[in-house]
Amino acid sequence: MDKRYENPNIATIWANPAKVARWDQVELAVINARVKLGLVESVSYLTIRHVLEENPADIDWWLARDKEIAHDLQAYVDERRRHLPVELQHLLHDRITSYDTQEAAFAQAFIDSALVVMTAANELQRVLQDLAKKYRFAILLARTHGQWAKLKSFGARILSWFVELREAREGVLAAVEGCRRSKLSGAVGNYGGEGLDPETERLALEILGMSTFVGATQIMPRVVYLPLAQALSNLCGVLEKHSTDFRLMARSGNPLVAEPFGKKQKGSSAMPHKKNTIINEQLKGMARMARGYVDMIEESLDTWEERAIEQSSVERVAWPDLFHVTMRMLNQMTAVFKGMQVYPDHMLKEIINSRGTYASDEAKAFLAEHFSGEGVEAEAAYRVIQLAAFNVFEPRGFWAEARKNIPGNLEEAQALLEKGLKEPSVAVENIRDWISNARLEYTDTLDITEEQVRDYNRLLKTLFLRPGILEKWEEIFKITYLLKQEAYLFEELLT
Amino acid sequence: MDKRYENPNIATIWANPAKVARWDQVELAVINARVKLGLVESVSYLTIRHVLEENPADIDWWLARDKEIAHDLQAYVDERRRHLPVELQHLLHDRITSYDTQEAAFAQAFIDSALVVMTAANELQRVLQDLAKKYRFAILLARTHGQWAKLKSFGARILSWFVELREAREGVLAAVEGCRRSKLSGAVGNYGGEGLDPETERLALEILGMSTFVGATQIMPRVVYLPLAQALSNLCGVLEKHSTDFRLMARSGNPLVAEPFGKKQKGSSAMPHKKNTIINEQLKGMARMARGYVDMIEESLDTWEERAIEQSSVERVAWPDLFHVTMRMLNQMTAVFKGMQVYPDHMLKEIINSRGTYASDEAKAFLAEHFSGEGVEAEAAYRVIQLAAFNVFEPRGFWAEARKNIPGNLEEAQALLEKGLKEPSVAVENIRDWISNARLEYTDTLDITEEQVRDYNRLLKTLFLRPGILEKWEEIFKITYLLKQEAYLFEELLT
Amino acid sequence: MDKRYENPNIATIWANPAKVARWDQVELAVINARVKLGLVESVSYLTIRHVLEENPADIDWWLARDKEIAHDLQAYVDERRRHLPVELQHLLHDRITSYDTQEAAFAQAFIDSALVVMTAANELQRVLQDLAKKYRFAILLARTHGQWAKLKSFGARILSWFVELREAREGVLAAVEGCRRSKLSGAVGNYGGEGLDPETERLALEILGMSTFVGATQIMPRVVYLPLAQALSNLCGVLEKHSTDFRLMARSGNPLVAEPFGKKQKGSSAMPHKKNTIINEQLKGMARMARGYVDMIEESLDTWEERAIEQSSVERVAWPDLFHVTMRMLNQMTAVFKGMQVYPDHMLKEIINSRGTYASDEAKAFLAEHFSGEGVEAEAAYRVIQLAAFNVFEPRGFWAEARKNIPGNLEEAQALLEKGLKEPSVAVENIRDWISNARLEYTDTLDITEEQVRDYNRLLKTLFLRPGILEKWEEIFKITYLLKQEAYLFEELLT
Amino acid sequence: MDKRYENPNIATIWANPAKVARWDQVELAVINARVKLGLVESVSYLTIRHVLEENPADIDWWLARDKEIAHDLQAYVDERRRHLPVELQHLLHDRITSYDTQEAAFAQAFIDSALVVMTAANELQRVLQDLAKKYRFAILLARTHGQWAKLKSFGARILSWFVELREAREGVLAAVEGCRRSKLSGAVGNYGGEGLDPETERLALEILGMSTFVGATQIMPRVVYLPLAQALSNLCGVLEKHSTDFRLMARSGNPLVAEPFGKKQKGSSAMPHKKNTIINEQLKGMARMARGYVDMIEESLDTWEERAIEQSSVERVAWPDLFHVTMRMLNQMTAVFKGMQVYPDHMLKEIINSRGTYASDEAKAFLAEHFSGEGVEAEAAYRVIQLAAFNVFEPRGFWAEARKNIPGNLEEAQALLEKGLKEPSVAVENIRDWISNARLEYTDTLDITEEQVRDYNRLLKTLFLRPGILEKWEEIFKITYLLKQEAYLFEELLT
Repeated sequence: MDKRYENPNIATIWANPAKVARWDQVELAVINARVKLGLVESVSYLTIRHVLEENPADIDWWLARDKEIAHDLQAYVDERRRHLPVELQHLLHDRITSYDTQEAAFAQAFIDSALVVMTAANELQRVLQDLAKKYRFAILLARTHGQWAKLKSFGARILSWFVELREAREGVLAAVEGCRRSKLSGAVGNYGGEGLDPETERLALEILGMSTFVGATQIMPRVVYLPLAQALSNLCGVLEKHSTDFRLMARSGNPLVAEPFGKKQKGSSAMPHKKNTIINEQLKGMARMARGYVDMIEESLDTWEERAIEQSSVERVAWPDLFHVTMRMLNQMTAVFKGMQVYPDHMLKEIINSRGTYASDEAKAFLAEHFSGEGVEAEAAYRVIQLAAFNVFEPRGFWAEARKNIPGNLEEAQALLEKGLKEPSVAVENIRDWISNARLEYTDTLDITEEQVRDYNRLLKTLFLRPGILEKWEEIFKITYLLKQEAYLFEELLT
Repeated sequence: MDKRYENPNIATIWANPAKVARWDQVELAVINARVKLGLVESVSYLTIRHVLEENPADIDWWLARDKEIAHDLQAYVDERRRHLPVELQHLLHDRITSYDTQEAAFAQAFIDSALVVMTAANELQRVLQDLAKKYRFAILLARTHGQWAKLKSFGARILSWFVELREAREGVLAAVEGCRRSKLSGAVGNYGGEGLDPETERLALEILGMSTFVGATQIMPRVVYLPLAQALSNLCGVLEKHSTDFRLMARSGNPLVAEPFGKKQKGSSAMPHKKNTIINEQLKGMARMARGYVDMIEESLDTWEERAIEQSSVERVAWPDLFHVTMRMLNQMTAVFKGMQVYPDHMLKEIINSRGTYASDEAKAFLAEHFSGEGVEAEAAYRVIQLAAFNVFEPRGFWAEARKNIPGNLEEAQALLEKGLKEPSVAVENIRDWISNARLEYTDTLDITEEQVRDYNRLLKTLFLRPGILEKWEEIFKITYLLKQEAYLFEELLT
Repeated sequence: MDKRYENPNIATIWANPAKVARWDQVELAVINARVKLGLVESVSYLTIRHVLEENPADIDWWLARDKEIAHDLQAYVDERRRHLPVELQHLLHDRITSYDTQEAAFAQAFIDSALVVMTAANELQRVLQDLAKKYRFAILLARTHGQWAKLKSFGARILSWFVELREAREGVLAAVEGCRRSKLSGAVGNYGGEGLDPETERLALEILGMSTFVGATQIMPRVVYLPLAQALSNLCGVLEKHSTDFRLMARSGNPLVAEPFGKKQKGSSAMPHKKNTIINEQLKGMARMARGYVDMIEESLDTWEERAIEQSSVERVAWPDLFHVTMRMLNQMTAVFKGMQVYPDHMLKEIINSRGTYASDEAKAFLAEHFSGEGVEAEAAYRVIQLAAFNVFEPRGFWAEARKNIPGNLEEAQALLEKGLKEPSVAVENIRDWISNARLEYTDTLDITEEQVRDYNRLLKTLFLRPGILEKWEEIFKITYLLKQEAYLFEELLT
Repeated sequence: MDKRYENPNIATIWANPAKVARWDQVELAVINARVKLGLVESVSYLTIRHVLEENPADIDWWLARDKEIAHDLQAYVDERRRHLPVELQHLLHDRITSYDTQEAAFAQAFIDSALVVMTAANELQRVLQDLAKKYRFAILLARTHGQWAKLKSFGARILSWFVELREAREGVLAAVEGCRRSKLSGAVGNYGGEGLDPETERLALEILGMSTFVGATQIMPRVVYLPLAQALSNLCGVLEKHSTDFRLMARSGNPLVAEPFGKKQKGSSAMPHKKNTIINEQLKGMARMARGYVDMIEESLDTWEERAIEQSSVERVAWPDLFHVTMRMLNQMTAVFKGMQVYPDHMLKEIINSRGTYASDEAKAFLAEHFSGEGVEAEAAYRVIQLAAFNVFEPRGFWAEARKNIPGNLEEAQALLEKGLKEPSVAVENIRDWISNARLEYTDTLDITEEQVRDYNRLLKTLFLRPGILEKWEEIFKITYLLKQEAYLFEELLT
């Protein structure tokens, strides 16, 4: 992994010293198991353990030996044996095959790395929960299809991120549990003649905190590990979605949030005004990387017969890099959320600018209910709201002109800009009043005739003359009405 | 492919009747080649051709036979032979193997399908060129990292889409050319004893409009076809980028464009005000599909020895589906661009709202140049612009309060909304005047001391007192200045 | 999906009638929940249910309506309402949004499809278990890296397939459980003002056999469904591995198995002697397809804010096609295993041909133990076995010549073939006797000097003169010795 | 990339010193272009160039600065400027944006890396060509579907690898040509007001050996680079196919080739007799990695508007790693082919063991032609050959028993083995004589009645009594007949 994206804890776990130390643990567990079965004397085991602990493997010696004999595990055995008294040498790696040593050790690297991931994910979950509380009543205009939809608190949006993260984290947890199974059953998985047997396997794995996966070949079926890779990538994919949301919220115009920005930071070498969402953009790339690594691992289920090493090069690279990428994403996302700037004033502006359409769902239901009393179809309520929404966003005056007429050259474009700069801002109409005042206007963008528009207005006039209707109507545009059920989410998810 | 996304032309090309007709063409070409070599009598060829043309293959008969003998090409041969006089039967599929028949026919399906794609891509290119001309002087605020950057015409943005599309289309064109090579060299690629030879191969392929790929096994190496799949997916990927841009432009708030919206269309079953970017969102999914199909095909280079059929099921599904997806994307994108609504008034508003920062690059260069005359570092120019940009976007009054104080419950949130609705809009400051009037203010979000701010203001005052400076300064904020070089793009790309 | 690979049960589940029927179930569940909450009268619910059941949706009407309004769920609502009495129309799809209807229905399609998959997987598991029993004592030479390794029964190899399949099947089972959670919380996931609330959601989902996923947006987070797609692909990947093993076993030369071959089947249109592994090759392609579909779905976690439909087109295609592919693989694999031909005679031949190397692991341990008594390093045991193995496979006489001299033209090649045809077969030596007779010979392919070879032979002579050694030595080459522990696998996995 | 798989040349190209040196080249080219346009004095350019050459960038200083300002290109500019006289500082990176510097430099890294790849690919091509010549007349039995098909020389098989490699290499070459286009058109691609223009761009790129890509945004469209990544992966995919073929040829039983095996090498820690195909297996994994990296890059076309950096993290990792993987594969494959052991004696044995079926295609055509003279359908010829092939492979005596009866326990299995070891080898029949002697026998595995078998034998007897027929018949089983057209491949591809 590029140094820039490397996580030091993950790097340590996958580096040679830790790898070889894990092999030591397995070799010792096998001897220890044989002690328990009365096959090896306890003192031999203790001596070997002592010698190995006192003499950590010499990584350079090992690598040089590997180069010579083209077999890394055998080179490791040679390295370890040279520290042992001759009479104990044969007890090390006795009647087991390379992958008997490597398999449980490999799974242990997953377990260790996953622990690092879980800790970071927990931290991010805590940050999100705190933020959800903090922004419990910072109201924004939620969006579907990038379009303004309905009101929601920023806290509730954060909760939706939180539950996705939690779901993905639980996926990692479940997958890592599956990795606590391994094998010590020889070169083709049936233990061979003597010296290695199911009981030795069971005891040795127990010492390592694992249980037996019965029926492996020389190696564990890779389908046992694959779900962990997928779960990690899914976690990355969830963070990718959150980073997209962040970038969308942070867009110039009326940004609702901004990434942390250092006091000395430069957003752009050319444009000094820039505050770019560079961290979140990087996260997008990281999620793509995670998927690529999983693709490599997914292809690697297919290995010939009792084993071949098609999966080996992939596993050396893709697994640690996948963990690095996951950690980078978790840590960067946590840093973003911890340091982000939030603009509730802009959230408010957006609600105001939406001209009451944020309540169109409830408004439609309100009209439908009252229209039905008049024998008017539900469809009419839909059309009235739709028409009003189109009306209030129709540009007028200078702006209507600017929509229609495109400048013919740069001078005209500049002249238009100068005119626009001087244009006074106009009062914004909203659908609440537009409808209650029966101001619907014909538009050629909808399939509603001028006569229908007149009918609708007549209907609305009648309706809003009735006592109490207007008060109820205005009520449904209120935050107090629209968000009253949101409390449920906070109760369920924060306690 | 789901009916909803199927393209009729592609469907026809890949349907059984057309497939079998392509096999006929190859079989006939082989016989015809043998006529040219004096190995078969011309009358035999003419008879066979006549019979086959008069008797299109009975698809049901063929499929039933395939079920029986589990060999689709042999079943086809049986179907075709039954129409022929007994004495001519052996001339059909004589001393060639199944893939001698299928290979060139398969490539022909690519060529035919690619022609459909190229036509649709051409149409989209034309639409984009026309739009680029139309919006040559509709100026918008281009974005990098989702943030306002510098001015650009909408026409120029469209040109950037056009060149990407053109690049991708040329990739398809080049790749399809590679498919005009094939083989007719028997079961293991060395022609065998007699009856099939390089000259027959050359002539038959020539009749089919192809040339010999020397050195194939029973089948063509799949690496010959793969670049076409990749080129199609790349084309889809380019359209995906354009669809993302479209969705970003169409976001509520100040949308610059909108998808075509039918007069009877409903944007949402719940929220009548919605006009969603559903077509462009669908395109995103389609591009993901294209990548998935290519993944399938990419894995399929690896086939055992002189051949096996690992690639066959993939090719039956992934290739036609990839063509369908490509066509769907091209046609949908074309429909969007033909019917889209464009809001130049909103483009203008965005420029105004950017408070002059759209010229920060040039403004920085201007100050740097003039500061350097004073012995002040270029760095100072950067900081002045950055500070001014931060200043003019600082909220004030009610809005500053709203940024700081988050409501504690729904009632407070509603109260804030009501206050906000009544808040008068304030005049927008911009960096042009902010700087020339030396109004820089201290902010704790940048690493600039209060003293530095004072120094900067003093420097600016001195500078802008010099004759002619202000005029030059204001000039660089003009569209006429900023976009004068854009003409180059239009000249190069539209003529 | 191509008709050829379509599964009828899966096709029915994903076809429009079943889809719309699932929507009916959700809409009815919502009304029913409101009855339970006292919000709707029981009779209204019963009437609606009756009408909908009596009037299955008219698919053509619905699709035509969808075309008109570009909204498939709203078109469905229109279709269903037209059958209802006017006064009950508003109760259908009342204050819920499209995805409130679709989400649980979508998950139900997964659950239904997964049931079909589980049934087929169970059948395959049973077939494998039966075969394992049947071939419990059919001994073969297991392979690692494609090379002969150690003895194993064919039954035990089948068990290794069985446990992989079981592991993958359990992954599907776990993933499908995760899909029994859904949402009914409105357009942005916070229920809105009135008419839809957590209690209605809970009750309606309970009626549908599901529980609430708290914190969804308009849609369920896609990370909830993704593990199912991955689990299906992993199942396909496991079958791919088995198909590779099958193909490797079925290779010409000394095939151990063969695919079922119909009495009328033709293996090749050109070469009548062929019995090809076409089904297993097809499975390879199918697994590639499964991975491609999962890639599409994996990318689809990233959807904007409270939702967009980037994932929709992918889901319409990739999910059913993934189920089709999975079913095709399961059914084809089951058919292969049920109808395969097994050649235990060839398994035996292979063991004989391996010249005793099948016991090299135990032989090495035997020598190492006895050498250590002589103060000779374990390394020597390794080298003796290695050298013996190289010796016994060294070609001699005519064959040694044939290895060295490559013909210079076709005539020489033909002459060599003719000579070879007449060459008498020679007795095959094996390492058991080679070593016990101390017949080691120098070879220039190993780093062992002639002197060392002499030393080794001397050592061996001494060793095998000792009483009882030869008997013990010959014992370890026996099946009874080598496979005695295999029983454990059968006990654990078949009972 | 894991150190184990890293290529030193690729590592150097992508390391920081070379990266920064490429940036220097672009910055200098821009100033030089301005000299040519009379905008900068020549002496300034020469001074800057001299200073930069004398003062290579201090990588640590640069990285520390990057950490501070979070902008790597701006940090680079700061590093470079500090070496320059103050009055020349502003000339460096003057009115260009970060990606104006980086884009051409990035493409240069592709070009440099691709050169390394092309050289290695050329070397492998040469090795393959030499091997093809060497094994021009080493005849083997080619396989389709893993089954024996027809004769082919090993040289011709090598040629089929050669042409695939050449095709893939040409793909890389074409793709890298596309990377010789770049941009220097400012932050949004329209040059801005002054100081940067199309002519400066053209000249600067020309100095760098590139041409202008008109219409880029701030960055080059990624679709320009993507085909190179795909071409590299396709090259890897081709090598993967060859590695599969190698592994299939090297399988125990009757291996046709073996990987180079060091004199001190250990094939297995447990089993001393092993010579595993570990390099070729590793190549399989490497190809999977290449595909994964391409997946990452393929997703990265989609970048927001005028640019964002979603692609940046992917590009930092996936591109160099893809080049490393490609180089590893090329170098390992070359080493395998240079050092491999070839066993022509085993090739010959395989031909003998195939019992004449290697000529079944020609034999069928021969019979069909002669049968048609008797008014017998072509189908009969097919069936005769098929039946004969089935007959000659039918086990007899002890082996027939061994096929039918599976041992019931380990003792029976051992007894069977002992019997088998003593079983004398029997003469192998072949279809040539089987058919000419009219010895067809009934089998219940084909849909041919006993009567039909009798008829076939009668027909064959009659036929082979005719003068000259037997001679002709035996001729078609000869290598001289079957391979006579193979010369064409060698002539076309080796000269």
